[in-house]
Amino acid sequence: MTTQFQASCNGVITEQIKNCAKKEDVQPEVVREELSAGRAIIPANPNHSGLQPIVIGIAFRTKINANIGRSTEASSDREEIKKMLTAISAGADCVMDLSVGNRLAELRKKLIANCTVPFGTVPVYEALSRVNGVIKKLEASILLDVIQEHCEQGVDFMTLHAGLRKKHLPFVLKRKMGIVSRGGSILAEWMQIHNRENPLYENWDLILEICRKHDVTISVGDGLRPGCLADASDEAQFAELETIGELVKRCRSAGVQVMVEGPGHIPLHQIQMNVEKEQKICDGAPFYVLGPVVTDIGLGYDHIVSAIGAAVAAQYGAALLCCVTPSEHLGLPTVEEIRAGVIAFKIAAHAGDIARGVKGARERDDAISDARMKFDWKSQFELAIDGVTACKMFTKRCKMLLKKGRIDYCTMCGRNFCAIRTFNRLKKSKIQ
Amino acid sequence: MTTQFQASCNGVITEQIKNCAKKEDVQPEVVREELSAGRAIIPANPNHSGLQPIVIGIAFRTKINANIGRSTEASSDREEIKKMLTAISAGADCVMDLSVGNRLAELRKKLIANCTVPFGTVPVYEALSRVNGVIKKLEASILLDVIQEHCEQGVDFMTLHAGLRKKHLPFVLKRKMGIVSRGGSILAEWMQIHNRENPLYENWDLILEICRKHDVTISVGDGLRPGCLADASDEAQFAELETIGELVKRCRSAGVQVMVEGPGHIPLHQIQMNVEKEQKICDGAPFYVLGPVVTDIGLGYDHIVSAIGAAVAAQYGAALLCCVTPSEHLGLPTVEEIRAGVIAFKIAAHAGDIARGVKGARERDDAISDARMKFDWKSQFELAIDGVTACKMFTKRCKMLLKKGRIDYCTMCGRNFCAIRTFNRLKKSKIQ
Repeated sequence: MTTQFQASCNGVITEQIKNCAKKEDVQPEVVREELSAGRAIIPANPNHSGLQPIVIGIAFRTKINANIGRSTEASSDREEIKKMLTAISAGADCVMDLSVGNRLAELRKKLIANCTVPFGTVPVYEALSRVNGVIKKLEASILLDVIQEHCEQGVDFMTLHAGLRKKHLPFVLKRKMGIVSRGGSILAEWMQIHNRENPLYENWDLILEICRKHDVTISVGDGLRPGCLADASDEAQFAELETIGELVKRCRSAGVQVMVEGPGHIPLHQIQMNVEKEQKICDGAPFYVLGPVVTDIGLGYDHIVSAIGAAVAAQYGAALLCCVTPSEHLGLPTVEEIRAGVIAFKIAAHAGDIARGVKGARERDDAISDARMKFDWKSQFELAIDGVTACKMFTKRCKMLLKKGRIDYCTMCGRNFCAIRTFNRLKKSKIQ
Repeated sequence: MTTQFQASCNGVITEQIKNCAKKEDVQPEVVREELSAGRAIIPANPNHSGLQPIVIGIAFRTKINANIGRSTEASSDREEIKKMLTAISAGADCVMDLSVGNRLAELRKKLIANCTVPFGTVPVYEALSRVNGVIKKLEASILLDVIQEHCEQGVDFMTLHAGLRKKHLPFVLKRKMGIVSRGGSILAEWMQIHNRENPLYENWDLILEICRKHDVTISVGDGLRPGCLADASDEAQFAELETIGELVKRCRSAGVQVMVEGPGHIPLHQIQMNVEKEQKICDGAPFYVLGPVVTDIGLGYDHIVSAIGAAVAAQYGAALLCCVTPSEHLGLPTVEEIRAGVIAFKIAAHAGDIARGVKGARERDDAISDARMKFDWKSQFELAIDGVTACKMFTKRCKMLLKKGRIDYCTMCGRNFCAIRTFNRLKKSKIQ
């Protein structure tokens, strides 16, 4: 079989390309062209039945990913399935399962069977889980086995922290927060214990072969993403990015679809530079950012902190935004927190799309504004990012007005002080 | 008496300048210099006892304002006092009372007596309330009386929509959403009904005399702020801004402190231009923005929508950010929603300060990151923007760990997968 990337390079318009073009309201040729240039990906493992594919790339609507997954300390299969379905119904474009612990294949099977969007994993988590979390016991062969099994199970994309190399470790020791990536820290300690190169880096060609065979998209992980503003845009981060740039080239040579993961904790004024740097070093590979988190002190509200960074990242060209939940830095998120993260990131992605000038992005805004002028609340709720919640809030506070059958103002200003009422009156008198 | 502006121009370091300099951790001369250049203001009416003054300007920490106030349809004096105290304890730097209806002076008296931060109003709301919301009955003399009374009562700053002129009205008719400013719509209809110029514009010299006498800061309102993305940065908005530029000059000539209000619904990529344009046209007068709201479809989540815009506005030099609550566009906010708005905007202001390079802004971020590396949760909660909420969230999800006396990881990754634990181990072994 050929990958979506290989097909696009051969000038073939696949079924997936057609579907994605329809969703984006562009010609299939545009999607094919972006795919063949490596600026877009369609993560779609043929083993994932029921998948409705999406295209991720700078030329298209910005997508958002929701992370789910149990830890050894919290949650259950049932809860994680609920999280996934909640995230998808709230508007997540793809989902990653970051579970660690026992019976991971079993959970993953249930998740994939219920997942209509691209499904991602981080194989090193399962590999380490298989040796009970003892890094010393982890072997490269286990990693390769897990990657192979994920591919067979229908995983559409996987994070591989192959860009983190032994030579980068000295840079990390200078940092305030060292390594905050779970996968990054595991591989770093592995390299130190075994005094060897990163097993993902060493086995890259083998991995490419497996991924090409199943058309699984590689998301090159940033094991050295900064974990605080003090570490942002430092030597460690950019040294790893250079290696990632090489790995991207090797993916393309092997016909494997690839995107690149990025930070992390980055101050607002460095986001544009970070996006542009990735685009340059990785030759336009879709950029998949976590947040960015624009301040370290927003504990409990990191969905807002990160939505700020995510909107700006999308504005400058990040193609996929990884949702951050309110409980980031505090513990495993609940179902409701996953939902809060998704909504915040839907807002960020949309604001970014408008700023980046994505075709048709502002149409919904214009339609909702027309509805607002007419006090057409029903249309407003239909067009809103989360109309159900908005409708509940409106109904609750305006119930006295609704009883009176008045919906041509709200409790904010009241009847005589409603600017829209006043203006509509003015406009009418002007016309007469 | 002389205003803070006049004193600064005379080279005088007032008590207020000294206090503000201390809060900002700068030399008093810096504050005096910024004040005398018109780039900063200290809204501090001598009649407002118990006020702890703040300085608002591009050279200092970005401030946030919380709007409170009852409408004719909702809330009570008691609830509004609660909103004000909640906003202040959550970190609002100043508060505006936007109440309309009856017994406004009575409510305001209670609010000011309990208000330790600068207190603002919009006199046209009370003026129109006095004639039962009938714009036709509104007279310029009522407006002047209300302004005078607010000054005597201890109001520190007031919004006056004097920049909206008769000649601007034709531009507004072309818009999708016309006029969404409550004050702007009132004055627009007044001008049309009476076929006369804006009474605030016509009586500007008289108003300046009153404000100078009480050192009340004028916040020149933007009656034509765009109410949707389609109307952003249009002819109407910038025509009014030109007039505002003239009014700023006249304030300064009269020795009156002044800041300028700005939008509103603005897409992310136009925020920098908007801030810079205001700075240029209004000769550096502090810019006080509402949001900006970066998408129209975030109903129910407009605190997040606006925090995105506010952070970027602060990054480029907005000095004061007006909080938007989750219920904006839906109804009058509750106490809890006021709090949610303030927290979101504390985050935005802080992210903006870091990006703008405000001295010392990142110190708290660095301290919290140090605490995070040491699993010092107590310090993290002390340093967080809302540590009480963060602590509750942590305690709830990590209670099993706390029972075991373990706080050196959390439920997010669990013990064996905690990146910080792994990295600390790696670092230790490296040193040995």
